[in-house]
Amino acid sequence: MAETAGKVIKCRAAVAWAEKEPFSIEEVEVAPPKAHEVRIKMVATGVCHSDISFLNGLLPSAAKFPTILGHEGAGIVESVGEGVENFKEGDHVIPLYMPQCFQCPGCRHPKSNQCLKLFPQQMQGLMQDGTTRFTCKGQSLHHSMGISTFSEYTVVNDVSLVKINEEAPLEKVCLIGCAIATGYGAALNTAKVEPGSRCAIWGLGGIGLAAVMGCRAAGASKIYGIDINPDKFETARKFGCTDVLNPKDFEGKKFADVLTQMTGGGFDYTFECIGNVNTMLDAVESTNRFYGVTVLVGIAGHEKKMDLSPLLIVSGRTLKGSFFGGWRSVESVPMLVDEYMSGKIMVDEFITHKLKLDDINQSLELMKDGKCVRCVIHY
Amino acid sequence: MAETAGKVIKCRAAVAWAEKEPFSIEEVEVAPPKAHEVRIKMVATGVCHSDISFLNGLLPSAAKFPTILGHEGAGIVESVGEGVENFKEGDHVIPLYMPQCFQCPGCRHPKSNQCLKLFPQQMQGLMQDGTTRFTCKGQSLHHSMGISTFSEYTVVNDVSLVKINEEAPLEKVCLIGCAIATGYGAALNTAKVEPGSRCAIWGLGGIGLAAVMGCRAAGASKIYGIDINPDKFETARKFGCTDVLNPKDFEGKKFADVLTQMTGGGFDYTFECIGNVNTMLDAVESTNRFYGVTVLVGIAGHEKKMDLSPLLIVSGRTLKGSFFGGWRSVESVPMLVDEYMSGKIMVDEFITHKLKLDDINQSLELMKDGKCVRCVIHY
Repeated sequence: MAETAGKVIKCRAAVAWAEKEPFSIEEVEVAPPKAHEVRIKMVATGVCHSDISFLNGLLPSAAKFPTILGHEGAGIVESVGEGVENFKEGDHVIPLYMPQCFQCPGCRHPKSNQCLKLFPQQMQGLMQDGTTRFTCKGQSLHHSMGISTFSEYTVVNDVSLVKINEEAPLEKVCLIGCAIATGYGAALNTAKVEPGSRCAIWGLGGIGLAAVMGCRAAGASKIYGIDINPDKFETARKFGCTDVLNPKDFEGKKFADVLTQMTGGGFDYTFECIGNVNTMLDAVESTNRFYGVTVLVGIAGHEKKMDLSPLLIVSGRTLKGSFFGGWRSVESVPMLVDEYMSGKIMVDEFITHKLKLDDINQSLELMKDGKCVRCVIHY
Repeated sequence: MAETAGKVIKCRAAVAWAEKEPFSIEEVEVAPPKAHEVRIKMVATGVCHSDISFLNGLLPSAAKFPTILGHEGAGIVESVGEGVENFKEGDHVIPLYMPQCFQCPGCRHPKSNQCLKLFPQQMQGLMQDGTTRFTCKGQSLHHSMGISTFSEYTVVNDVSLVKINEEAPLEKVCLIGCAIATGYGAALNTAKVEPGSRCAIWGLGGIGLAAVMGCRAAGASKIYGIDINPDKFETARKFGCTDVLNPKDFEGKKFADVLTQMTGGGFDYTFECIGNVNTMLDAVESTNRFYGVTVLVGIAGHEKKMDLSPLLIVSGRTLKGSFFGGWRSVESVPMLVDEYMSGKIMVDEFITHKLKLDDINQSLELMKDGKCVRCVIHY
């Protein structure tokens, strides 16, 4: 048993004290895991664009301040609480912001990949018993999305965690915990792209590139990558884009009309991986009016609305959402890790920057400026 | 051969001279069918709520004034033009506003039920050669939806027509040409409702009741009928509604929240059969957030927008459209007629009023006041 087991651990974490303020690197206290909880020594975490959104208060349920954000990590089990049967000290794990308990109505429903076991508490930034395991300067800090990976140590419920292949490099496969699973699954599970399909992806960040990878794996014949930052196009081609387009090159024209004309009637599948209501409308309008499918993957602010003409839908289009790529997390994340290990999916190619925790605010700047795909924090 | 064959026929029709004006019963001249066209003696036609919408200019592509509206009829072939092989004088037929040519990219696409052969001309209110067959007081009248059933005689392209069982009463099965196919197919083909599903239908007019019938045929365990006119509830129960609700009984509460609570998390499938953007939003919001499916069947005005929060979708909901119930028309309409003849689907129960052509404006009043399900004009 680790000598820290059962004790409070003092470690460093990126604390988000208040909305719209930069992260503050602090010493925090991480309480031991309670029953059915696991404490993890984080090895690495990706920084997702959603973390900026949460920091900016766009989705209040994901960030109750003060909090520790981060939801794309990998680490090693330090200790386990009472009643934990599936994990032990030393296990290599990926924490899951979408748990899988196998027992709740969500897990048992044939069409849902969303576990309800921790749902109300997780939305409040709390562990299942309604308390938190983080303290800083005498103040409780909220958890975020049940896993708070921006800390050297974190505590998660045992249904929010999965063991993975011990050979897998944790500083790489951490990205499977969010971006890669989300985008790849949006194409394979939510859209169910068929061979020969014509697809388009708005937003060539981590999730968008993973969606490109999913379309390619599904055998799409055309994959258009769309972004207003042409610096992303070279990478997009490596991931499988057959065409890359910058909407700014078509100013003065309605971009959806340009795309509909280019494709002779519109795409089979489009993916919005930005979270912008205007590009969502473009993504809908540029699908085929009779059978086109648009998948929303990007998260818009809670007050944002799509100004959607129902005539676009009633002619036969479909608009659907994808959450965690439609994967059931415990069953799928280890499989995706194995797909990486066998060379079936790309992971290394997402990582453009390695940073230390002290430099986490730099990753926000890199994202805002479109200078990175994924920054990974190495603890 | 009919003695009228090859000659102009003078007959009576309900002419829509201009937007928002009542129909005017006029003597019109109906030219003989050109190549690949068929002239039909109409026996009966339903009046659809969409006819009011078209008359009010809500969907300009369906009504280029002056025009003859009507798209839910049945009749008998009077004569055929050159090259028509599938029809002959005396055939009992239902005209199809959604044709099926079996050859265009729409007909050949595995996921589309929408024929493109006549598409651009039909949207302009013209026959395929760019002209019209109707004249009144020296003025050409536009066709509407390719079939213009509000006339004692009409001319349609031979792909916009299908022969049906000669035993079937034309003054009943005319409704299969729109309302019944549309609503019934929205449940069976577009939503693909499964046994045990919990469904809700907004708008208990002809299309809504047909959707109820589809949900029942699919084995839904709960079918909520929703309308602000409680006079429709008794009929709705006959069609299969297990529960009926008037949103006005819940004023002061958010109706979608009431429904989500009643169903312990939201419906599996909802159908909007009105064409109102607010009830569309209710229909989306009251489905299960992780896997609920909303089908838009009602047609909103071309300038209307849904103020849709993308967060409602991204959590896992689906919003899709159904046009002509997802049926391929030539293949399916005769089958639906046979289902009626064998007692599998209800048709008679939709018909609340029989009217003469002279009284067609009365049917508009009955619809506006919610006093009818379907009015059928008997020629």
